[in-house]
Amino acid sequence: MDIEKIVEGILQQNIRSIAKAITFVENNPSSADLIINPIFGRTGNAKIFGITGSPGAGKSTLTDKIAKSINKKGYKVGIIAIDPSSPFTGGAILGDRIRMNTLSTVDGIYIRSMATRGMLGGLNRACLDAIDILDAAHFDYIIVETVGVGQDEVDIVKVSDMNAVVLVPGMGDDIQALKAGIMEIADVFVVNKSDREGVDKLLTILNHFNTLSEKDTPIFQTIATTGKGVEELVDYMLIGVEKNAQKSVEERRLERLRYRVLKIIQEKAVDEVLKKSKDSMEIGLNKVLLRENTPYQLVEKLMELLCK
Amino acid sequence: MDIEKIVEGILQQNIRSIAKAITFVENNPSSADLIINPIFGRTGNAKIFGITGSPGAGKSTLTDKIAKSINKKGYKVGIIAIDPSSPFTGGAILGDRIRMNTLSTVDGIYIRSMATRGMLGGLNRACLDAIDILDAAHFDYIIVETVGVGQDEVDIVKVSDMNAVVLVPGMGDDIQALKAGIMEIADVFVVNKSDREGVDKLLTILNHFNTLSEKDTPIFQTIATTGKGVEELVDYMLIGVEKNAQKSVEERRLERLRYRVLKIIQEKAVDEVLKKSKDSMEIGLNKVLLRENTPYQLVEKLMELLCK
Repeated sequence: MDIEKIVEGILQQNIRSIAKAITFVENNPSSADLIINPIFGRTGNAKIFGITGSPGAGKSTLTDKIAKSINKKGYKVGIIAIDPSSPFTGGAILGDRIRMNTLSTVDGIYIRSMATRGMLGGLNRACLDAIDILDAAHFDYIIVETVGVGQDEVDIVKVSDMNAVVLVPGMGDDIQALKAGIMEIADVFVVNKSDREGVDKLLTILNHFNTLSEKDTPIFQTIATTGKGVEELVDYMLIGVEKNAQKSVEERRLERLRYRVLKIIQEKAVDEVLKKSKDSMEIGLNKVLLRENTPYQLVEKLMELLCK
Repeated sequence: MDIEKIVEGILQQNIRSIAKAITFVENNPSSADLIINPIFGRTGNAKIFGITGSPGAGKSTLTDKIAKSINKKGYKVGIIAIDPSSPFTGGAILGDRIRMNTLSTVDGIYIRSMATRGMLGGLNRACLDAIDILDAAHFDYIIVETVGVGQDEVDIVKVSDMNAVVLVPGMGDDIQALKAGIMEIADVFVVNKSDREGVDKLLTILNHFNTLSEKDTPIFQTIATTGKGVEELVDYMLIGVEKNAQKSVEERRLERLRYRVLKIIQEKAVDEVLKKSKDSMEIGLNKVLLRENTPYQLVEKLMELLCK
């Protein structure tokens, strides 16, 4: 694979190069810098939106409508759908195809789904790399769409420039399902499927939440399938990202970068240890299984190898 | 805090010491070894069950009933509920209190909820430490209960000795919500609330899944609230953990340990970098924000400091 050509392609806004680059940073954690280093100077212009909602909240439809609306105003929009689907059950693949079909005719919208693989994170690091790739390719807005459960999923929207949390009426458990700190970091609540029964109850809960938390997080009502309310929401998000978010864009950028750097360190440390100590690792694990050593003692030894 | 006394208390099966120890490993990642090293030789006897289901599946009620049933057979059972709740919205606290009330009269069952804090994982490492603490305190079975969305949540049940995936009829989206590889690693499917409409459809889907994946994952039907079907499920799990699981207990132990060691390395690496390079970190972050450096170049410099 010709990295230089891919990098060039990114800067020329070539969609195939962008896709290849994202696949590369996903699959090659220890060489992601080959893509990121040369493009990094061209990043920093895109605004990052986080859109979070539990399954069934109509999050994907809403995201697509938001993207189209922003795109109509003349901006390029990237969507990174963090999809917990397994390839096996086909959710991600099928879901994506359907979405691709409705979006592929639109120029200036790029949608990409990223799924976890492996057991040591890395998804969020790859997602932040993908944001840089889209940013360098002159995408103006990048929407990271995620299911609002799970720590990683919360972390990644936490460091976006503005978060929309999507809820639906009539699912009492839904607020429960979303509670991993997501409610607290929402910059805007979206009550989707707002023609459904139970909307008043949900609005009451959200207002109550605002009162309790001494915040004034705005609440928008939408029906994503028909597009109702989407324009108002988009207008708010576009203007609001600069001034209405709970934290300034500068603060968030610093937080995002700090998080990213620590994530890269985590990945690098494990990578180096595995490279430098393959044999000692296996021997060490067996010693721990035999209780001749503890996991922490093994780590101490492995960390020493790291610096040799 | 007198670590020696806590360690002694754990080995004497003192519940207050156990609780203190778990709080300690949660709050003090870099000193967790002080608790784990001295007790580790006494671990390795407990069997670990993972119970996973999306919110609304009746997971907690089912877990409680399973724990009581195992306990009645004369075993000590620990429950670690990985709770994505934020303390603010009160979910975890309230939920726990209700559960504590129904379980607190039962001797030999210990329930503990663990929630994520901070942005760099650490929950799963702490959970594995907590398992050791309960194991050393002679708990025979430890149930890790989690919401089946989110990579961390999947990872932690993946390394248990046997996984039960809980589903409910009539929520078409539920299988969607659970699909992050959870379906594939299930050792047993539990159709809870099996008196509900839609049970046949769900059974068809699960059988179809079994056919597609060329597996024969057993399917149990329960009504957790009344206890119906729980005994049969428990009997299967207790016998099956040794021989019916997809992987042998030995394989899983090695996997669990490997995962744990790598998680500790991740945490230690970040910890050390932050300790050794506080100033360079802040200066470095600002340079990256000004695009004088890339995140990957910064990490390279920080990793060098790590080894000084």
